[in-house]
Amino acid sequence: MVPTGASQRVQRARLFTAEDPLVLDGGERLSEVEVAYETWGELAPDASNAVFVCHALTGDSHAAGDPGQPGWWDVMVGPGRPVDTDRFFVVCPNLLGGCRGTTGPTSVDPATGTAYGLDFPLLSIRDFVTVHRRLMRHLGIRRLRAVVGGSLGGMQALQWGLDAPEEVHGAVVVAASSHLSAQNIAFSAVARSAIMRDPEFADGRYAEGGGPRTGLAIARMMAHITYLSEQAMAEKFGRRIQEGDEPRRRFGVDFAVESYLEHQGQAFLDRFDPLSYLYLTRSLDYFDPFADPGATGRAAAAARTGRRTEFLVVSFDSDWRFSTSHSRRIVRVLERARIPVSFREISAPHGHDSFLLDVPDYLASVAAFLDHLADVEGGSGAR
Amino acid sequence: MVPTGASQRVQRARLFTAEDPLVLDGGERLSEVEVAYETWGELAPDASNAVFVCHALTGDSHAAGDPGQPGWWDVMVGPGRPVDTDRFFVVCPNLLGGCRGTTGPTSVDPATGTAYGLDFPLLSIRDFVTVHRRLMRHLGIRRLRAVVGGSLGGMQALQWGLDAPEEVHGAVVVAASSHLSAQNIAFSAVARSAIMRDPEFADGRYAEGGGPRTGLAIARMMAHITYLSEQAMAEKFGRRIQEGDEPRRRFGVDFAVESYLEHQGQAFLDRFDPLSYLYLTRSLDYFDPFADPGATGRAAAAARTGRRTEFLVVSFDSDWRFSTSHSRRIVRVLERARIPVSFREISAPHGHDSFLLDVPDYLASVAAFLDHLADVEGGSGAR
Repeated sequence: MVPTGASQRVQRARLFTAEDPLVLDGGERLSEVEVAYETWGELAPDASNAVFVCHALTGDSHAAGDPGQPGWWDVMVGPGRPVDTDRFFVVCPNLLGGCRGTTGPTSVDPATGTAYGLDFPLLSIRDFVTVHRRLMRHLGIRRLRAVVGGSLGGMQALQWGLDAPEEVHGAVVVAASSHLSAQNIAFSAVARSAIMRDPEFADGRYAEGGGPRTGLAIARMMAHITYLSEQAMAEKFGRRIQEGDEPRRRFGVDFAVESYLEHQGQAFLDRFDPLSYLYLTRSLDYFDPFADPGATGRAAAAARTGRRTEFLVVSFDSDWRFSTSHSRRIVRVLERARIPVSFREISAPHGHDSFLLDVPDYLASVAAFLDHLADVEGGSGAR
Repeated sequence: MVPTGASQRVQRARLFTAEDPLVLDGGERLSEVEVAYETWGELAPDASNAVFVCHALTGDSHAAGDPGQPGWWDVMVGPGRPVDTDRFFVVCPNLLGGCRGTTGPTSVDPATGTAYGLDFPLLSIRDFVTVHRRLMRHLGIRRLRAVVGGSLGGMQALQWGLDAPEEVHGAVVVAASSHLSAQNIAFSAVARSAIMRDPEFADGRYAEGGGPRTGLAIARMMAHITYLSEQAMAEKFGRRIQEGDEPRRRFGVDFAVESYLEHQGQAFLDRFDPLSYLYLTRSLDYFDPFADPGATGRAAAAARTGRRTEFLVVSFDSDWRFSTSHSRRIVRVLERARIPVSFREISAPHGHDSFLLDVPDYLASVAAFLDHLADVEGGSGAR
């Protein structure tokens, strides 16, 4: 619905149809699922060098930049970067339920000829992975060198490595969680409430470009508070007063931090859809792969073979959205199941946003992990 | 505007009039200022046993309970409690700018005959103290045994002790700050944005009982996240699913924490006004008494006499809204100015809300401090 500024590179694949529908984790079915994705680099003749990049809550397929159009993960993906597009064939799809080219709640329901709205089925993170896996096969790939993601993207990497270890050599799980805390859910809940209580929400049947813009801006502003550490906000803005024309000491934008949040809230409206925000945040709330004690069974069995997933889990010491304790829990469960896992807590001041930023120790850890996978892959011939 | 459930005990005093207006910190004037307040206990013949209780952002004058109507600070104020109404004459006024009986933006502007709305002047925490001081004199009191408050209430206690040390023997500053951090201001800013972007806000000219109810509920829900520690939320709600009639796994109230926040947001609408929320949060944003290097001058000079203020500063280790670092800064500045100050960091799991709860170590610290003041008062005859 909001394809403004969509990359020239975007490709599309119709991966599920009425004859071959997507069966969701919750039992419902979706036909006519189209996925928007971008790729970089060349797939090796034996298809052994593919890396999937999974985006976070509000990302899109444009992970790496073209001239004039930066990607959201240029520090990670590109020539000479850790996910090196000179060596790897890199794929980044837009998420199911999103609003950047892949089928979501603003797409037309073939059964009715109108947009799904709230009739779109609820999604789980496993559903995202199911679609990624179909795209992988569509591209002629049977096993990935790695799947890499931060935040919601990291949860997809975790789920994929658990569900299909034979398809993923390395899973890089950055600034993620195996389940949201009550506080995490609380922030989601207030964001959704701001969207759904906005009178323009109209039960999700709003006109294109309209809808609960106020609610979505409020949700985004609040989310941005949680993306930065208190320290980073203090250093970036402190109590600095914003220069401007408005009279001060009233209720306009007086402080620099207010100006920043207002800008973030407003800019978001041009590129994101309120219904997608509902669906994707709800998938986060319900994510809890380890709730099933047998969840690690496939990955643990695979760990005793050559076709297993190795995990790299990364956290940032200033991240209070998904603090290191979330990552440690993932590591603990994987280790107890004898699934290979490395862990790095990176010192960086930026909070949750660190996963998107140029933090050398972090990028070096991911690069080293991908090098290690290449060595193993080359040595064992396990492709 | 929202006097629902106002206590039977509430008294009113017209403290400023057209002939004797309130001159605000920012230079503007307010005439016809009426203050709602409650008192407990008996004032001693020499008026030496008075304690002022200052409420926080959304409090009112009903600090201590009557049968059937609990007070918001019953753990602190009452017979045998630290602020012992058998020993002290206790006064709790509703704040200037509030909506629980004291003049505020929903009061009628005598110049126009209609509600002030956004024409009400901006307020500082010093303005609240100016009104408290007038009320004190109105009640025949020249010097308080103590002024006691948490959060915004603690800031009033700090300001009073700095501005008029000859009027305050002890100032108890709980879970407060000498200035808000960028993150604190950010939460305020999003709350105000939710209120002011609500179409029902109508530039503050909404009808009584109407107005930006959605925005105010969102603001309140978000604030409640910051009042609890992550740990307290985890223990109280975890990922528990709320029992109910609604179908689950959609966008209703699925998780217990969502139910809690929805309830808090809704209940708040019956007792608070959106304009008051704007004015009181803005007074917090701008509070910064130590920005003026001479701010401690009066209190420091008084510290060398018998008519000085002694401070007790209390923080809670799980409070992330005003963490211990905020309290330490207050202590540091006071100590450098040679102003007497004690400091307690209390271990309690509840987060910022701890200041309202039955935390024995905290209550014992306040009780001990008030006992100490009584000893000094008795010994030095400094009344």
